[in-house]
Amino acid sequence: MQIQDTITALATPGGAGAIAVIRVSGPESIAIVDSVFKAKSNKKLIEQPSHTLHLGNIVDGARIIDEPLVSIFKGTRSYTGEPTVEISCHGSHYIQQEILQLLLRKGCRAAKAGEFTLRAFINGKMDLSQAEAVADLIASDNEASHQLAMQQMRGGFSNEIAVLRQELLDFASLIELELDFAEEDVEFANRDQFQELITKITKVLKRLIDSFATGNVLKNGIPVAIVGEPNVGKSTLLNALLNEERAIVSDIAGTTRDTIEDEISIGGIGFRFIDTAGIRETVDVIEGLGIKKTFEKISQAQVVVYLLNAAPSVSGSSIKGKALQEFQLEIEKIKNRFPAKPLLIVANKVDQLSLEQRDQLQEELEAISSSNEKSRTLLISAKSNTGVEELQNALLDFVNTGALHNNETIVTNSRHYDALLKALQEIEKVQEGINIGLSSDLMAIDIREALYFFGEITGQVTNDELLGNIFANFCIGK
Amino acid sequence: MQIQDTITALATPGGAGAIAVIRVSGPESIAIVDSVFKAKSNKKLIEQPSHTLHLGNIVDGARIIDEPLVSIFKGTRSYTGEPTVEISCHGSHYIQQEILQLLLRKGCRAAKAGEFTLRAFINGKMDLSQAEAVADLIASDNEASHQLAMQQMRGGFSNEIAVLRQELLDFASLIELELDFAEEDVEFANRDQFQELITKITKVLKRLIDSFATGNVLKNGIPVAIVGEPNVGKSTLLNALLNEERAIVSDIAGTTRDTIEDEISIGGIGFRFIDTAGIRETVDVIEGLGIKKTFEKISQAQVVVYLLNAAPSVSGSSIKGKALQEFQLEIEKIKNRFPAKPLLIVANKVDQLSLEQRDQLQEELEAISSSNEKSRTLLISAKSNTGVEELQNALLDFVNTGALHNNETIVTNSRHYDALLKALQEIEKVQEGINIGLSSDLMAIDIREALYFFGEITGQVTNDELLGNIFANFCIGK
Repeated sequence: MQIQDTITALATPGGAGAIAVIRVSGPESIAIVDSVFKAKSNKKLIEQPSHTLHLGNIVDGARIIDEPLVSIFKGTRSYTGEPTVEISCHGSHYIQQEILQLLLRKGCRAAKAGEFTLRAFINGKMDLSQAEAVADLIASDNEASHQLAMQQMRGGFSNEIAVLRQELLDFASLIELELDFAEEDVEFANRDQFQELITKITKVLKRLIDSFATGNVLKNGIPVAIVGEPNVGKSTLLNALLNEERAIVSDIAGTTRDTIEDEISIGGIGFRFIDTAGIRETVDVIEGLGIKKTFEKISQAQVVVYLLNAAPSVSGSSIKGKALQEFQLEIEKIKNRFPAKPLLIVANKVDQLSLEQRDQLQEELEAISSSNEKSRTLLISAKSNTGVEELQNALLDFVNTGALHNNETIVTNSRHYDALLKALQEIEKVQEGINIGLSSDLMAIDIREALYFFGEITGQVTNDELLGNIFANFCIGK
Repeated sequence: MQIQDTITALATPGGAGAIAVIRVSGPESIAIVDSVFKAKSNKKLIEQPSHTLHLGNIVDGARIIDEPLVSIFKGTRSYTGEPTVEISCHGSHYIQQEILQLLLRKGCRAAKAGEFTLRAFINGKMDLSQAEAVADLIASDNEASHQLAMQQMRGGFSNEIAVLRQELLDFASLIELELDFAEEDVEFANRDQFQELITKITKVLKRLIDSFATGNVLKNGIPVAIVGEPNVGKSTLLNALLNEERAIVSDIAGTTRDTIEDEISIGGIGFRFIDTAGIRETVDVIEGLGIKKTFEKISQAQVVVYLLNAAPSVSGSSIKGKALQEFQLEIEKIKNRFPAKPLLIVANKVDQLSLEQRDQLQEELEAISSSNEKSRTLLISAKSNTGVEELQNALLDFVNTGALHNNETIVTNSRHYDALLKALQEIEKVQEGINIGLSSDLMAIDIREALYFFGEITGQVTNDELLGNIFANFCIGK
């Protein structure tokens, strides 16, 4: 791909702010900005060294549009790998638009979404998976997704793939060389070493493929369903976890009919809390629909929090009242439907119980819980913020964050996941070929296929449609 | 005021974007950023020259938060007039917050609204009226308000005031000197020259005070009331003027019950179009309230557009039908109530008339219009966009934009207006003093008062409350 035009776009979020940054990149970027910029120093930007800042006026003929600060990046020493100018102007919408329109009149083209990063990829400043990580980095809203994006942007994952790809490519060349000497039946490629490489590649691919489940959850947030009868305090708990008033809190039972999702970061991991309508048996049609929805939400969740109301008026003053039996029935329902799902049984409103009553409740709940080793019991008061931190810790315990903290390579991108799966399929075919002593010419085809999918990840193999799909998800100005 | 701490804030608008800029200003700014920034060059920022850009990592211990570009401004060569660092990071909310929190932990303080500009004022980089213009510049959304803010920011207005203040101050010193020689009855201050100065100051103050009416309108947009019976096409016209679908357009008469305001820029001037419920007589209570509101809106408007439906089914096939008489009655009502207000009589839907009918309608409307020299008649079709440009031109003609285009100094700030009014009062007292031959000691008091109000404009006289009020209107990060 040959880049000839100069592009421009607003790089900071839209709307008014103290400052806004307009990015200009391409062979003519410095010349174009020079044609509208009068530096205080009276020197042209083209005469100034790279990586320097200059105050001056952006002018349209005699009219002064703004007094911005201009950064210049010469040669290939920029984000895009081509001459770049960044105009840091006053943040009014009017000024942003006037400067952009002036630049367009002077020969710039409006940049498409992700086009600056696309240029960085084309100019060899980053590979494709690193470019994709830039969008992930901007979208990340908790430590886990941020760290995953940083890791990918810094090339950890694609470096590993690139090394394997090179080794495989070397063998492919040797095996293809054998084809030219087919009649002489020589083997340039050492079959033992080749088997070793294929074993290694299979192992790495499987590890990366397995990491996707973890990566996907860490990137998108771990879904937690909160289940409990109306008025048990789900919204209050959600607010305690969120530390703000987002869900409607009301004393009228059944207020939360629709499921509400809220994402909060606990210990740097994003959790998506899904408030459900509970699973109490009811004749009310809307409530009935709510229960169906609740089961759907549980099936999508990684963890279930079953919340029950421990207030004596509800659970019975002896605690071993009728209510507790009902809770047990509901818990059994969840366990039967979702036997493998981690379940946290949380008794809320324990501030209304004596210490003795709490101990008794704890024992009773543990008895209910004990049949499932993935169950745990907690006594909390969301209203008085008691036990909320323990609940957060219990949630973290359910999540295997070891991989993240051990700095292992984790795949988060479904495009990469697909390519890895396909590469593994091809490598497995190669392995079969080795096993049955397939001829070099047929083996070479499978190896080429595997190489293709490796190349798709790093971008050594691309096409316009693939690039279009990837960069369409970027924001304009990046 | 002594500045000792280092402040930081996000300078770009909130929300996710390609990049975000975090500003750090104060004596320790470079040292603080150096403590968390690892440049690719391995050099400390403190060793680098001013006005240079550096790529590297922002780190919190071993954890890499982002790979930003950092700009440094040393000594007093910055916006604030003190050492400043700007961190241009990836635009995710998470990264912005992590970097800001890291900087706060390392010794920065979160900047208050407008605090960077306050520091620029304190450090003598700009006077107070220039600082105020910065906020105006960011808020400006059309060419007129933008140009006014730029003019003020570049010091046009406060320079004029500062020169007059200095001349007055010189005379004040001479007059006060006379007090020391009171018994000797000497006059150090030439009374003719003093009279000349007072005359000049009076003239300038009056001109500036008069400019406020124009300035205020240009800054805030010129209010135009659109009046007409329901279903006449007010919303369609508004949309044609706006070039987008903002008001509700419907064929049901009386859809627009509430007044809608929309601002558009015509020829660089902001117009605020106020859609009203019309003034048709009705028994409907809500419509009745609408009519009252319509008159209120007309009284606040600078121009009235009376829109009538020229479609034959409404105006009568002979055009001289009953409907036209009703329009005439309503127009008379407006004229009687607001005799001095410019009025544009606009016949809409003329696409439904033959050319002959149009000529006839034009004549009839001109007859109605003729009694008021500030009236004009236009035939348009908002739907087919006929005559909309003529309407825009007619609106521009009503506005005296001469002052703006002649680059005259225009006052737009009500604080300045107040100070100018008070200064004029004091100068008029001084003039009276000259007229009645008041003694030097009494005259000196009035001069000091006038000087005080001059100083309030430029900021040579300030107090914490005044500064607090001014900078509270800024956004954070400016």
